[in-house]
Amino acid sequence: MNAVVPCTSSVSIGPQRFVVVYAIEGNEEQARAKAIDLCFEQTVEFPETLVPERLIREGVVGRLDSLDRRDERSFLAAVSFAGDAATGDLTQWLNMVMGNTSLKPGIRVERIDLGPTAAAFRGPRFGRAGLRELLGVFDRPLLCTALKPMGLPVGDLADLAYRFASGGIDLIKDDHGLADQRFCRFEDRVSHCAAAVARANRETGLRCRYLPNVTAGPDQMPRRATFAKDCGAGGLLMSPGLCGFEAMRQLADDDVLALPILSHPAFQGGFIASPNSGFSHHALFGQIPRLAGADATIFPNFGGRFSFSREDCIALAAGTGAPMAGIRPIFPVPAGGMSVAQVHELAAAYGSELIILVGGGLFRAGPDLAENCRALLQIARQFPS
Amino acid sequence: MNAVVPCTSSVSIGPQRFVVVYAIEGNEEQARAKAIDLCFEQTVEFPETLVPERLIREGVVGRLDSLDRRDERSFLAAVSFAGDAATGDLTQWLNMVMGNTSLKPGIRVERIDLGPTAAAFRGPRFGRAGLRELLGVFDRPLLCTALKPMGLPVGDLADLAYRFASGGIDLIKDDHGLADQRFCRFEDRVSHCAAAVARANRETGLRCRYLPNVTAGPDQMPRRATFAKDCGAGGLLMSPGLCGFEAMRQLADDDVLALPILSHPAFQGGFIASPNSGFSHHALFGQIPRLAGADATIFPNFGGRFSFSREDCIALAAGTGAPMAGIRPIFPVPAGGMSVAQVHELAAAYGSELIILVGGGLFRAGPDLAENCRALLQIARQFPS
Repeated sequence: MNAVVPCTSSVSIGPQRFVVVYAIEGNEEQARAKAIDLCFEQTVEFPETLVPERLIREGVVGRLDSLDRRDERSFLAAVSFAGDAATGDLTQWLNMVMGNTSLKPGIRVERIDLGPTAAAFRGPRFGRAGLRELLGVFDRPLLCTALKPMGLPVGDLADLAYRFASGGIDLIKDDHGLADQRFCRFEDRVSHCAAAVARANRETGLRCRYLPNVTAGPDQMPRRATFAKDCGAGGLLMSPGLCGFEAMRQLADDDVLALPILSHPAFQGGFIASPNSGFSHHALFGQIPRLAGADATIFPNFGGRFSFSREDCIALAAGTGAPMAGIRPIFPVPAGGMSVAQVHELAAAYGSELIILVGGGLFRAGPDLAENCRALLQIARQFPS
Repeated sequence: MNAVVPCTSSVSIGPQRFVVVYAIEGNEEQARAKAIDLCFEQTVEFPETLVPERLIREGVVGRLDSLDRRDERSFLAAVSFAGDAATGDLTQWLNMVMGNTSLKPGIRVERIDLGPTAAAFRGPRFGRAGLRELLGVFDRPLLCTALKPMGLPVGDLADLAYRFASGGIDLIKDDHGLADQRFCRFEDRVSHCAAAVARANRETGLRCRYLPNVTAGPDQMPRRATFAKDCGAGGLLMSPGLCGFEAMRQLADDDVLALPILSHPAFQGGFIASPNSGFSHHALFGQIPRLAGADATIFPNFGGRFSFSREDCIALAAGTGAPMAGIRPIFPVPAGGMSVAQVHELAAAYGSELIILVGGGLFRAGPDLAENCRALLQIARQFPS
């Protein structure tokens, strides 16, 4: 019946492949069947019986490289895909890794091995070492906080930014809900907050950076990033679950902007809602933002107001630093209701190659915000890197 | 302690609010606590004790309008949010609906009531009636198929397009894995396939439309959409899970393009992987693509190779057509391994306001593809709308 599907010539497809390791539920026979199905579903999306044999031979169809028992109920399937089919655009790349298969239960992306296809990606412009260089901080975890709550007038947000910077915070990000609201316009906020941080830096001699939230649609995001850069903002906050990972990659790769990027996990929870579907924390919050050019990845820490386990978080942090075909390591940023008192716990769990993000907790320690920041800084200095 | 957080003046926030109905697991006390927590988490992201009271009074913080028992283990919480805080940008709008809360288990978006905030959205340009008008088909379900498999040379894809169009298919979409691969360049494919469909239309007198896949990053997508339009393509395929819903909204709202949009569910599976988290099928595949301007929404049908239940699919289809503050109804497009023989079942489940998408199944019916299409058309005509 194949004759009904034409395939008149070979396609020019390179030999470079990357490997995705999927955890698949079932006994060996079931897992193998699901893995083979996945090789077709994620590429030709066509019944095996109808696919011109040439497409299998040429490697357009995914290849099951190995299938190994994972535990009593599941297997690990290593599937390779052609780099030329996935392209260097993360919309198509992610589509190949998990597009349709995300809609099927019992299959989870555990980790990705880019191999020679890594050449299609620049990864983070700065990474851990580059961000430390920008900030001039080499001997302790970095400190980050957030401008909030949404609803404050711009002047109050700028005042907060000034006090955080005066107190020695390294990175001040917008809360990810600060967009371009009528009551707090992007340009108004960003220009005032960037100026407030610059003023504090002149007084302290430090190099605090302000990272406004530029998450928006394709027509606004590049414009906002440029505006931020022109105001002197020192980086960008983006939520790739909302604007797409490829949008992040494009801003990261922009040589005129050349700003560090902080990735926020908003709207990505679906992929870790079930332990047997979606992505591992390691891949979703560790490897993928790194591939998309983030220099640091925010995630909900264990013990905060979210529900990630300690084990999830440690595996996630490993994804930020493990060798990845030459792509730079990035900072893990555990967050979500952290208090100043938890810094010891964070350093114990993650080591000192870490950004400590304390938001509301910074207000709780005492009435003088800059003083609270300095106290946090003192604690962070106890953990030399 | 509030004095530490400045709030020197009121913000100018309009009274228009929209309502999100969340299903929340727990007993009444637990559900109420989670619902109130959500009102803060999704807006000010700040502990209630630290939020300046003015932000609550002015409505920046979400409001729990009602809490009703859903079943023995869960409640329905209706939470309203300020339209001015969510803005008309779907990145921020979705962030407010489910950004951080997506990372918490046991909370699911059931449905959305836009109320007066609907004025911020144009919704679908065509919708059901407009798409029928474009195609000149008023008396039966519409027919759709896909150009695939990935890996075919452009000439073969164009040949398929010609045969599908000759056989009377209304809408021919790219497979969602056809991007801009080295072995099948976007511009080459789109120009040849659009020309093939135009040639068939000249011969048949029909109005078949070709919808290329324009899913890509912000720098490429608008350019590809414009190229497609200039080639005579009759619509666009987009996967908003990969490129973002706001990117879809912007192309839908583009008055120069003015093309119908077909939404593909790739990479959205995480949100329906757990029955107690993420989104209902009704909201995710019915209401939200409609809000983002899609004219039709593809989803995996029950009984195919995916795992949506019949109940999920019927609720989803209801989300495409139920009254939604003046936003046009759109077509449900059940898909995923449909065969010609299943048309009766589809029409029985969804009625005739439906797009029937048959991919690989069209090849199976017999060796002459155009003849297979004509047979499908004959069956569809048995279900007058």
